Amino acid sequence: MDFKSELLRRKDEVEDVLVEYFGDKLGHQRTVVEAMEYSIKAGGKRLRPILLIEVCKLLGGNEEEALAFACAVEMIHTYSLIHDDLPAMDNDDFRRGKPTNHKVYGEGVAILAGDGLLNLAFETMLEKIIKTPGLMDRGIKAMHIISNASGIKGMIGGQVVDLESEGKKIDEDTLEFIHLTKTSAMIEASIKAGAVIGGAEEKEYRKLENYGRSVGLAFQIVDDILDVTGDEVKLGKKVGSDIDNEKSTYPSLYGLEKSKEMAYELFEKSLKSLEIFDSKADFLRELVEFLRVREY
Amino acid sequence: MDFKSELLRRKDEVEDVLVEYFGDKLGHQRTVVEAMEYSIKAGGKRLRPILLIEVCKLLGGNEEEALAFACAVEMIHTYSLIHDDLPAMDNDDFRRGKPTNHKVYGEGVAILAGDGLLNLAFETMLEKIIKTPGLMDRGIKAMHIISNASGIKGMIGGQVVDLESEGKKIDEDTLEFIHLTKTSAMIEASIKAGAVIGGAEEKEYRKLENYGRSVGLAFQIVDDILDVTGDEVKLGKKVGSDIDNEKSTYPSLYGLEKSKEMAYELFEKSLKSLEIFDSKADFLRELVEFLRVREY
Repeated sequence: MDFKSELLRRKDEVEDVLVEYFGDKLGHQRTVVEAMEYSIKAGGKRLRPILLIEVCKLLGGNEEEALAFACAVEMIHTYSLIHDDLPAMDNDDFRRGKPTNHKVYGEGVAILAGDGLLNLAFETMLEKIIKTPGLMDRGIKAMHIISNASGIKGMIGGQVVDLESEGKKIDEDTLEFIHLTKTSAMIEASIKAGAVIGGAEEKEYRKLENYGRSVGLAFQIVDDILDVTGDEVKLGKKVGSDIDNEKSTYPSLYGLEKSKEMAYELFEKSLKSLEIFDSKADFLRELVEFLRVREY
Repeated sequence: MDFKSELLRRKDEVEDVLVEYFGDKLGHQRTVVEAMEYSIKAGGKRLRPILLIEVCKLLGGNEEEALAFACAVEMIHTYSLIHDDLPAMDNDDFRRGKPTNHKVYGEGVAILAGDGLLNLAFETMLEKIIKTPGLMDRGIKAMHIISNASGIKGMIGGQVVDLESEGKKIDEDTLEFIHLTKTSAMIEASIKAGAVIGGAEEKEYRKLENYGRSVGLAFQIVDDILDVTGDEVKLGKKVGSDIDNEKSTYPSLYGLEKSKEMAYELFEKSLKSLEIFDSKADFLRELVEFLRVREY
């Protein structure tokens, strides 16, 4: 099986578990549960949950324990997209070719659906911890890592600075801050949470943390590069979302060639972090190769 | 000291601890931290954190352990108000005589400030659990209770049904659902979380749970009654928020006298739930007397 098929297989596995959290539409709350489910089912690479599960397995951990945390990080990622798409934020009508949440359910319900998903992420992790003997210590640590990455020190911090930077020239430091917090933080947290659930030793944890940080930032730089060169931009234009040419990106600040070099270096660094692991880390290595040759 | 002064003293105590969470404005994130702090400092009765702390103390628990959870429930309450005030929801320009969060910081930052507060509530509880030996079991249970009450099964569920019910006639069942979830759920959860932190035995827990449910619903019915008779309505009109006369309330569905009776019965029931406790529960008893003779 080639790596792309392998990735798709794992994506399907995550989605099978993820949708189960929305099977019960409750009673009066039907609308908000449906709105949450709509965005959860709207696709995506499922990179964060796949990483969390994979890291747990690499360490010989129990995949079944990791699943709830994997679903939780995807719920948090999805809520951030719903709120990011709102008229007061990026004002996007489409995401991945489908109408955004507020276009289907209205702004009020979309705000509550986002809130509901963030809350459900914590409910999901807590329920898993309570029901699983021996998971409490590791579960609390994983939840702590995830909550630090999704809050003002992480993702929300990045979103607010991104919002404030719109249409402005920003400096390298601010751009790196946005990328490290808005996107990388949750990618890195998924890897660290997987490491904790999998019972990583200190040294393994540090190596995986470095892997996560490098991959997360490189991933975002590649996204920036694709915004200049790639097919995803054209697709974006086709479905009507507007590309903000004023926006500061790695290519606009450093130039295209230098940005490619920076991404290359980060991917190399991430591979180096995996050197202490045997062939069990091959999936994480192949993922780097896969991400670095994405369409650009 | 009369009870009102006693309440104010406890409110001040809670606020002293609460504001400490916003002392560090971080770096780039300054705006969102300030927006969060603005609404946290905008006042309110602090009923939920006071109840959480009081219940913990009543059981001989450690007040210091309860404080982080008390602050967390107030953060969750505050985030729900910020999002509730947004143009896509209730569209309120003022709350407690001050401009609402989005009027000061703009809608985008207000959405993120709300998200940030919900997230910070979990960060706060998790940090406390990690730092406090022996708190893990009780802390997880308390956090689980709080997260169930703030999510789609609780507060968010109530908000979405409230939003859908705007300008519509709703039946008694739907109105009770909104009240039980939108307001009561977090009041009840504060009491239950305080009971768990305080180490309640099964019987004590059940009694306090009943107290919480009765007080929570009665509190909301009194709010409905005040919307018809009280000063708070006049104040609301003065500062420009619109009172929706179409909105279904206990008085509009049951009439004023019947609503007062229902609140009375619930307050009686809540006092009955406290019978197994000695004079240590006097604060909770006095609170009932205080709430039942509010301005109406």
